[in-house]
Amino acid sequence: MAKVRKRAMRAGNMLNPTPVVMVSCGNTVGDYNIITVAWTGTTNSDPPGCFVSIRPERLSHEIIKNTGCFVINLVDRNLAACADWCGVVSGRKYNKFLETGLTPIRASKVNAPMIEESPVNIECKVTQVIPLGTHDMFLAEVMAVHANESLFSKKTDALELQYAKLVCYSHGHYYALGEKIGKFGFSVEKNR
Amino acid sequence: MAKVRKRAMRAGNMLNPTPVVMVSCGNTVGDYNIITVAWTGTTNSDPPGCFVSIRPERLSHEIIKNTGCFVINLVDRNLAACADWCGVVSGRKYNKFLETGLTPIRASKVNAPMIEESPVNIECKVTQVIPLGTHDMFLAEVMAVHANESLFSKKTDALELQYAKLVCYSHGHYYALGEKIGKFGFSVEKNR
Repeated sequence: MAKVRKRAMRAGNMLNPTPVVMVSCGNTVGDYNIITVAWTGTTNSDPPGCFVSIRPERLSHEIIKNTGCFVINLVDRNLAACADWCGVVSGRKYNKFLETGLTPIRASKVNAPMIEESPVNIECKVTQVIPLGTHDMFLAEVMAVHANESLFSKKTDALELQYAKLVCYSHGHYYALGEKIGKFGFSVEKNR
Repeated sequence: MAKVRKRAMRAGNMLNPTPVVMVSCGNTVGDYNIITVAWTGTTNSDPPGCFVSIRPERLSHEIIKNTGCFVINLVDRNLAACADWCGVVSGRKYNKFLETGLTPIRASKVNAPMIEESPVNIECKVTQVIPLGTHDMFLAEVMAVHANESLFSKKTDALELQYAKLVCYSHGHYYALGEKIGKFGFSVEKNR
């Protein structure tokens, strides 16, 4: 009684949309690097956990393996081209902070730079490295978060993340977030 | 020389936007369940890998622990309210397929139902369970993917995932994908 015609495809990565973030790392200014990843996500609520998966041949893999930490920098519309570029080229060829003009600032808890121009910076400490094939998965605990003051409501002082104009990634394309469909729990709200 | 005022926040889950997907599981029709998760993502390109993190007290945790598999069903605008509801209520109280009217169909490679109404179904086999605190992380390998025939271009026969009108999740809200900003690699394209 199938109503919808489905096509079987080969097994592949079809989980969409995904986040797209700039991961910054490095011990000293000369070593600082940025890699853009979509293979990232939240793994745990408490303690707050997340991961990034990185190919062993990438420079950032070597750096994060050594320092045991990194910063996840969220990407807004203004940063989309920089993020794309940092995902396409290698830190072995380019100093990505210099080439993009992005500003490294000191993190508070981990040994890695944060990107000042990113609206939200998430400091992460690696807890486990899991080899999965093409990529190694760096499981991490969130140690600190920083957000631009301009993202907080003047009325309520609450974080209004929609002000940040974040970008997501889906099937090879970057998208702005569009229409707000509802709040978590909207399906059971009384005055829906 | 800080140009941007930043506010230090407590460590928390601020990685946004995230995917939001309906995870279906269960061995027999009577056991079928659906849980909506945002703590999910792609972990590896080859072999294709992904994960879902689920609290041990959730019914789906017990089911997936037993069957060792699940299906990730992508969520489009039409499914947003169903997805929200399946994330809010418990499978211990409701038969979620019956209550939502969603249709379970047989997966090809794993012992779990797929949701017919979802535009893309991803069959997953658990490879590792990692306890992280509030959540256990189910690492999985993608065994098969199914997509609605209507998502393929009539001209090129390529998958045009933007036809699916997928939804993402950010800081407690569901969003439609908005304006397309660029394709992967757009920052280095010659005719930009």
